[in-house]
Amino acid sequence: MRKLVECVPNFSEGRCSEIIDSIVNEVKKVEGVKLLDVQSDGSHNRTVVTFVGEPTAVKQAAFASCAKATELIDMEQHHGEHPRIGATDVIPFIPVRGVSLDECVELANELGQEIGAKLDIPVYMYEAAAKRSDRKNLPDVRKGQYEGLKKAISEPERKPDYGPAKMHPKAGATVVGARQFLIAYNINLSTSDVQIAKKIANNIREVKGGFKYCRAMGIRIEDRNIVQVTINMINYEGTPLHRVFETVKNEAARYGVNIIGSEIVGLVPLQALIDTADYYLRLEGFNRKQVMEENI
Amino acid sequence: MRKLVECVPNFSEGRCSEIIDSIVNEVKKVEGVKLLDVQSDGSHNRTVVTFVGEPTAVKQAAFASCAKATELIDMEQHHGEHPRIGATDVIPFIPVRGVSLDECVELANELGQEIGAKLDIPVYMYEAAAKRSDRKNLPDVRKGQYEGLKKAISEPERKPDYGPAKMHPKAGATVVGARQFLIAYNINLSTSDVQIAKKIANNIREVKGGFKYCRAMGIRIEDRNIVQVTINMINYEGTPLHRVFETVKNEAARYGVNIIGSEIVGLVPLQALIDTADYYLRLEGFNRKQVMEENI
Repeated sequence: MRKLVECVPNFSEGRCSEIIDSIVNEVKKVEGVKLLDVQSDGSHNRTVVTFVGEPTAVKQAAFASCAKATELIDMEQHHGEHPRIGATDVIPFIPVRGVSLDECVELANELGQEIGAKLDIPVYMYEAAAKRSDRKNLPDVRKGQYEGLKKAISEPERKPDYGPAKMHPKAGATVVGARQFLIAYNINLSTSDVQIAKKIANNIREVKGGFKYCRAMGIRIEDRNIVQVTINMINYEGTPLHRVFETVKNEAARYGVNIIGSEIVGLVPLQALIDTADYYLRLEGFNRKQVMEENI
Repeated sequence: MRKLVECVPNFSEGRCSEIIDSIVNEVKKVEGVKLLDVQSDGSHNRTVVTFVGEPTAVKQAAFASCAKATELIDMEQHHGEHPRIGATDVIPFIPVRGVSLDECVELANELGQEIGAKLDIPVYMYEAAAKRSDRKNLPDVRKGQYEGLKKAISEPERKPDYGPAKMHPKAGATVVGARQFLIAYNINLSTSDVQIAKKIANNIREVKGGFKYCRAMGIRIEDRNIVQVTINMINYEGTPLHRVFETVKNEAARYGVNIIGSEIVGLVPLQALIDTADYYLRLEGFNRKQVMEENI
């Protein structure tokens, strides 16, 4: 079974298709890497690229696309709604198969070092790869954005983990790190009362005493006249889908409300579905290798 | 996504490893085919070979191994506990991915014709590939076994579907067909009373008014001092895992008994686990392509 790592770099260009294509091309050129998705947003002026492959190939593709963005994007001219500090704003590595989060941390450090040394860009390590506890969260690292960091970078507490303590004149700075796969998961409720969705979201959110790896909000789905608990599952091994689903079901029952359905938005690792079946069928000794397709 | 078909031929040799190896080698030699399993049983004097691959390659491997078995196995000398009519006793094709049962029926007919014409072996089509309703079930086709069929084959109702109406002097006859993937599934109950397992098995068996694609028995698991409903799920799309699990759970509750756990023995298609997660999480609009690993 090949080791697989996912990488989801965010670039500060969401409007000029020529620049976006040039950056994405650097990913396509690397053998052993599969491009899964490219999402550009004009108002954010930002593009999110998703690819997957063996660790070394993925790191190579990440570096090549970062080098191309450094060449083509000028942060002095950049405007957009989304917070950012550089042309290649953030590069997370995510374990997919046969790879630990620690291995992704190592990969992130190798890339951070390379970007600092070869491209002369200050690099901050974040999430699981953070070297200081105040750099775990991306918003903290991005504080002041590109414009603010230009001045603040000379302060000791903003000193980058790799590269020069000085912004790259066009590309700014870059954040590199490792995190678990994020599952975007929504649960729809049989009520139009958004307060119920908000209360239940608070029941399951880490910050309100809920699950450690759960971020949640309650929102209205206007066209269906229902409400939704919209969730980011930031570590499906630590906080599994079934536990969130069952907890929302129980909390909703307290208001006489049912779960109508749930949605997985975008990709989900096979293991998360196996874990779900394992829980509900109370499986004994089930091994992932028993999945037919895993043997092919 | 590559089309994938599984093939599980049964050969009438379970003791001589040289003969078994020669037959299995014919499968290994075919490009695009992956050998998954070889199970030999001495008292049955029978070997079950499992492989998977693209339809044409799988058919080629099935023919090559059948030709080798025709060469090396002499049914006049064969003794074993398991019913059989030929050296290559039975060859089922099973859809795995991107292939319909009908396509497997077609593949089975092509192979049956080839075995009849090139190896001079009478071939009977069974299960989904049966050409007569009295040949759907394997035991009916094997009636009288090798010894009995030698005489009966000249009778009109035993006329083979392909090949000569005369047994091959050493290899006998062969059964070829197509069926759905079979999931071996056991549900363990919190009681030592085997009567409860037997009653629940009857509740879910097709023949007793239960689920169409469910074969079940109640047995004792001595070393754990519990009982088990042991099930063959012969079509997991028609009768899904969760429905059998929930029905057994409800029927067991009537005796104050709980499900301790369940076991999937051997391989299971990914789709059966997706369907399980889909049911319990009440997923809306989930597509198999959302499974990360399916995109690689």
